[in-house]
Amino acid sequence: MANIKQVAKQAGVSVATVSRFLNNKDYVSQEAKAAIERAIKDLNYRPNQVARSLTTKQTNLIGLIVPDITNPFFPQLARAVEDTALALGYTVVLCNSDEQQEKELHYIAMLRQTYVAGFIVASNLISEQSYLDLNIPVVALDRSPESLLPNVSTNNFEAAKLGASYLIERGAKHLICLRGTVDVASSNERVDGFLAAMTEAVDYEILIGDYGFDNAYKLMTTYLQQGKPVDGIFTCSDYAALGVLKAVKEAGLRVPEDIQIVGYDGIQLGELVPPGLTTVAQPVYNLGEQATRMLVNKLEGKDNPDTRIVLEASLCVRGTTK
Amino acid sequence: MANIKQVAKQAGVSVATVSRFLNNKDYVSQEAKAAIERAIKDLNYRPNQVARSLTTKQTNLIGLIVPDITNPFFPQLARAVEDTALALGYTVVLCNSDEQQEKELHYIAMLRQTYVAGFIVASNLISEQSYLDLNIPVVALDRSPESLLPNVSTNNFEAAKLGASYLIERGAKHLICLRGTVDVASSNERVDGFLAAMTEAVDYEILIGDYGFDNAYKLMTTYLQQGKPVDGIFTCSDYAALGVLKAVKEAGLRVPEDIQIVGYDGIQLGELVPPGLTTVAQPVYNLGEQATRMLVNKLEGKDNPDTRIVLEASLCVRGTTK
Repeated sequence: MANIKQVAKQAGVSVATVSRFLNNKDYVSQEAKAAIERAIKDLNYRPNQVARSLTTKQTNLIGLIVPDITNPFFPQLARAVEDTALALGYTVVLCNSDEQQEKELHYIAMLRQTYVAGFIVASNLISEQSYLDLNIPVVALDRSPESLLPNVSTNNFEAAKLGASYLIERGAKHLICLRGTVDVASSNERVDGFLAAMTEAVDYEILIGDYGFDNAYKLMTTYLQQGKPVDGIFTCSDYAALGVLKAVKEAGLRVPEDIQIVGYDGIQLGELVPPGLTTVAQPVYNLGEQATRMLVNKLEGKDNPDTRIVLEASLCVRGTTK
Repeated sequence: MANIKQVAKQAGVSVATVSRFLNNKDYVSQEAKAAIERAIKDLNYRPNQVARSLTTKQTNLIGLIVPDITNPFFPQLARAVEDTALALGYTVVLCNSDEQQEKELHYIAMLRQTYVAGFIVASNLISEQSYLDLNIPVVALDRSPESLLPNVSTNNFEAAKLGASYLIERGAKHLICLRGTVDVASSNERVDGFLAAMTEAVDYEILIGDYGFDNAYKLMTTYLQQGKPVDGIFTCSDYAALGVLKAVKEAGLRVPEDIQIVGYDGIQLGELVPPGLTTVAQPVYNLGEQATRMLVNKLEGKDNPDTRIVLEASLCVRGTTK
């Protein structure tokens, strides 16, 4: 492979000029630029990323941190981020924090040492201040629009209100909201949306779970054994809704005749599991794309007035509601 | 944070000695080693990864390339690789090739430039020779045991034979094998296993699809419209089996009464989708763990007689078979 000396020779400039060109630092004349670009192309020269990152303290790696890669929402989101990043010349390093703070901190430290250009954070464990302290661009994704970090999210409150209202509209009188863990801001907003939909004609209960399948299944199995009246369940994630659906069916109850269920997220899987999950669908691909564009704009110092993008969700009616 | 000079001072050795120690190069006396280790611990010194990788041409990053992150098999596999790698002191960079050769080549080039320590490759698009040419440790995962690369896989032939035999044992007479794309070696072996299970008492047809949901759904929908007799379907992935299940149900046929289905992989999701997917379950977590240990052993120059590990699959009987 060609090296920087050969590029300089071919372009008729000094190695220092090529180096300035590669690192976008200081002044390089238009003629020199054109000559270097030609030489790079002719020689098929690829600058060594590690050597460059020592000088520029920057790579074109984006760290994407997700809380649970086995929840199908996150692979769908990751794919949108990857697609967009690749088209913009960046490579995505996908890190699964597995909802473990230690793992997340390890990934951040590791990537920081390799001069990752920026982070997109879709997990909720580490304090936002820790990310701000990194002093590199960070965009929060699928967190709360109230986040201190620049962020892209769905309007959690309105979306959850939409889903819970639909359960009441379809006749549910005894509702449950299965929420995520209490330290997750997006989950707090979804619960607020659920509460805003409640009327005097219904009663409700809030159960604390997480966005995963297993806990939702266990919680609902235990709950149903108590024999309390329930005919409508709103969950704060689709993956949790599938756990609820399994528990309800195993309890010998019919969906939607006995119990109606509305999920949240819009994962592809919701369509697969009979009778089809009614859900508040986030614009998953758009979320990932917008977050990536926002981060890349920051990395490239482009004008970027939007440090907060809030997208709207839509109701997707399938078979778990009447 | 402490730097290398402080470590050298505290340890009472030269900076060059600390550098030799960090890079595992040349001779460092036992006393110096002990003093440096103590100093590193006392000062909480962490060597700069980028600077080190310029010298050692190595990082502790492992690139994991998967073909389709939206197929739930791969997130499950990735999680096992991540868990194991983290415990062994490595960080996993997850790359989704999205079954696009260009994307895969881009990831490889990018990671190679940042001196990734090694690759675990669970995709099938790039020729094995390309990986061998990288001259860094590479382990193939979930490919063919006949691979040129060191590899960890399930016994595809025996596993598929087990699944197809079970369909016949439960009374299927008109079988379909929905295989993956023809260039995927693991799929070829699974088809061979299917064929080995066929007897004179049955007829069969082989359909070429891929391991994804969408194609399986479309293929089977079209096939069923032709009205040919079919009462047993073996698919070469669970994700494809779910697509088949959807098509069969939409065609107004009952599972397992009219058509029995056996999948391949053992994804968690198979349990979720009623009536529960009968499948040939690969030991997913063990596959990921073994591949990671094999790669790390290679990276660390440890004795590693196993350049080929073949694990056995097991039949997991649920509701899609009688």
